[in-house]
Amino acid sequence: MATTDTLVRIALDERSYDILIGSGLLGRAEIYDGLPAGRDALIVSNTTVAPLYAERLADALSGRYARVQTVVLPDGEVHKDWPTLNLVFDRLLASGCDRKTVLYALGGGVVGDLTGFAAACYMRGVPYVQVPTTLLAQVDSSVGGKTAINHPAGKNMVGAFYQPLRVVADIDTLASLPPRELAAGLAEVIKYGPIADAALLDWIETNLDALLARDAAALTHAIKRSCEIKAEVVGADEREAGLRAILNFGHTFGHAIEAGLGYGVWLHGEAIGCGMVMAADLSARLGLIDGAYAARIEAIVRRAGLPVAGPRLGAGRYLELMRIDKKAEAGEIRFVVIEAPGRAAVRAADDGLVAQVIEAHTA
Amino acid sequence: MATTDTLVRIALDERSYDILIGSGLLGRAEIYDGLPAGRDALIVSNTTVAPLYAERLADALSGRYARVQTVVLPDGEVHKDWPTLNLVFDRLLASGCDRKTVLYALGGGVVGDLTGFAAACYMRGVPYVQVPTTLLAQVDSSVGGKTAINHPAGKNMVGAFYQPLRVVADIDTLASLPPRELAAGLAEVIKYGPIADAALLDWIETNLDALLARDAAALTHAIKRSCEIKAEVVGADEREAGLRAILNFGHTFGHAIEAGLGYGVWLHGEAIGCGMVMAADLSARLGLIDGAYAARIEAIVRRAGLPVAGPRLGAGRYLELMRIDKKAEAGEIRFVVIEAPGRAAVRAADDGLVAQVIEAHTA
Repeated sequence: MATTDTLVRIALDERSYDILIGSGLLGRAEIYDGLPAGRDALIVSNTTVAPLYAERLADALSGRYARVQTVVLPDGEVHKDWPTLNLVFDRLLASGCDRKTVLYALGGGVVGDLTGFAAACYMRGVPYVQVPTTLLAQVDSSVGGKTAINHPAGKNMVGAFYQPLRVVADIDTLASLPPRELAAGLAEVIKYGPIADAALLDWIETNLDALLARDAAALTHAIKRSCEIKAEVVGADEREAGLRAILNFGHTFGHAIEAGLGYGVWLHGEAIGCGMVMAADLSARLGLIDGAYAARIEAIVRRAGLPVAGPRLGAGRYLELMRIDKKAEAGEIRFVVIEAPGRAAVRAADDGLVAQVIEAHTA
Repeated sequence: MATTDTLVRIALDERSYDILIGSGLLGRAEIYDGLPAGRDALIVSNTTVAPLYAERLADALSGRYARVQTVVLPDGEVHKDWPTLNLVFDRLLASGCDRKTVLYALGGGVVGDLTGFAAACYMRGVPYVQVPTTLLAQVDSSVGGKTAINHPAGKNMVGAFYQPLRVVADIDTLASLPPRELAAGLAEVIKYGPIADAALLDWIETNLDALLARDAAALTHAIKRSCEIKAEVVGADEREAGLRAILNFGHTFGHAIEAGLGYGVWLHGEAIGCGMVMAADLSARLGLIDGAYAARIEAIVRRAGLPVAGPRLGAGRYLELMRIDKKAEAGEIRFVVIEAPGRAAVRAADDGLVAQVIEAHTA
């Protein structure tokens, strides 16, 4: 494999893989050295990202496969569904792609999740490579092997745990990212502070302006540290039996916001940013952390340009939506809470207390 | 776990499971001892099987779960598709079923494959139990963890390798099986002779009348021996990297018949029966076995009540359909051939020779 400045190894036995992080990676042919050979590669991208980077990726792959095709999907969370997934299957089958075909997910979290699920299912599993082009995908959805599509009744309800062969996180692609999407990615970076690394939260507080200015060194550090923490957690709990659940800090509230508004109205990272503010407040109200720490998290989320107040759906609707979340068990909502700076836990909470949190953080 | 006369252990490390074979099993509560607890069980069945056995199964499970629901799907291979799969997801989500829900596949191969795939995908994986009610499902599709749905462009093109927790093969359910379906199941039993166990083919020749008369002892032996052979092969090659491919004897020709006629016109086992006749003839024409052994296989297939001549689609159409089969690689069709009685191999064959085989066995 090509050398790169920054590399994070995800250790999962025979499903282990590398995340390469750096500048100008995706167009370099040697970055893909060592991947299994096949006749076909299929780049899966969307209408926004394909015009920017698909040709560059296809050129880099052209020496490696007899055919490199690109399928361009509609852009957006609303298209993370079966009909869009089927566009990938249609192309694979229409082209006679066999079970050694390698899929390349070129885009953000939606493209990554959907392509990963397509790879998990096509002929019962073909290999795939993640080439994430958003900060959110680089720090979060490209690590851990969670793939899925949405169902009208819930987000990510149909999917698989399926690991990529490699992740190529080219930070140059972040230059074209709209500010709103950059902020959404920062939400997941911020997340790793409260749940796993108190020092990271200090670093983010100091370097948030550099991150917002897209400073390459700052972004590389943020991506690397986020991937390392996630790698550690996922390595210990690939199938989300326990520890891995702490990665869902802010997600129970956040998923309710996304589902309540309709997928795609808020970006996922925006919902998670606001969800973390709510979850931090819940932790404080449960007496686990003091109010000042919750306020500090809220201030960082706000400085990152993320919303700190959720939509006024009513506490009852929030609770209803949270009860059908995947993390719920026998109808009991499971919240990721902060027990101490840098340490998270999963627990239930009284509906009344949760309603107070929601009332305090919706506008 | 309850004792039963006949048990086959599928050894796949932490995904190992037992196949229980016997009379009157599905309605006995203790047969399900040792399965993980959950609030919900969902029985997935079809319009033919549910009226016969769903209530008996639900009663047996009622002490184990707070809720036992049944979803009844339309019957037949033509319904092994996304809209039908989605009926399962719709029910799970509408009922608020969490990720500890256990699915029970009650029916033939279509119900088993579809339910297994639903279990593989729902919330990225929930446990499931196979309760096969056809001979074909008992000897074949309930062993090995292959799950899938069909795509308009090909059979089983979208699926997963996903093992059940247990298989409950109640031979009493075979009493209600139409003769055509019994014969279709026998196709897969016959298959294990040429590919893996020369003595089994002798036994089948001697006991075919007893099998057709649904003699309980003969059926139990046939199911047990078939499962044992398949277990051995699958245990050595869970993800179908090599050896497992021999289980596809007759399937390359058979899938072409199914796809060419439209799924569901012939039963899967009928297509496999005819496909084995073709594959045996191909083996003889390749000089691997003598014509007498191929003729013996054809005679047994005919005695079982299975077709020995395929539909007249034209050799060109057969070849075209076989080239898009999952087993094809880079457009080259892979055939399972008999090298010697009880021993199979995978190899390519000249299009002209394959065309001769097809011309000789279509009417």
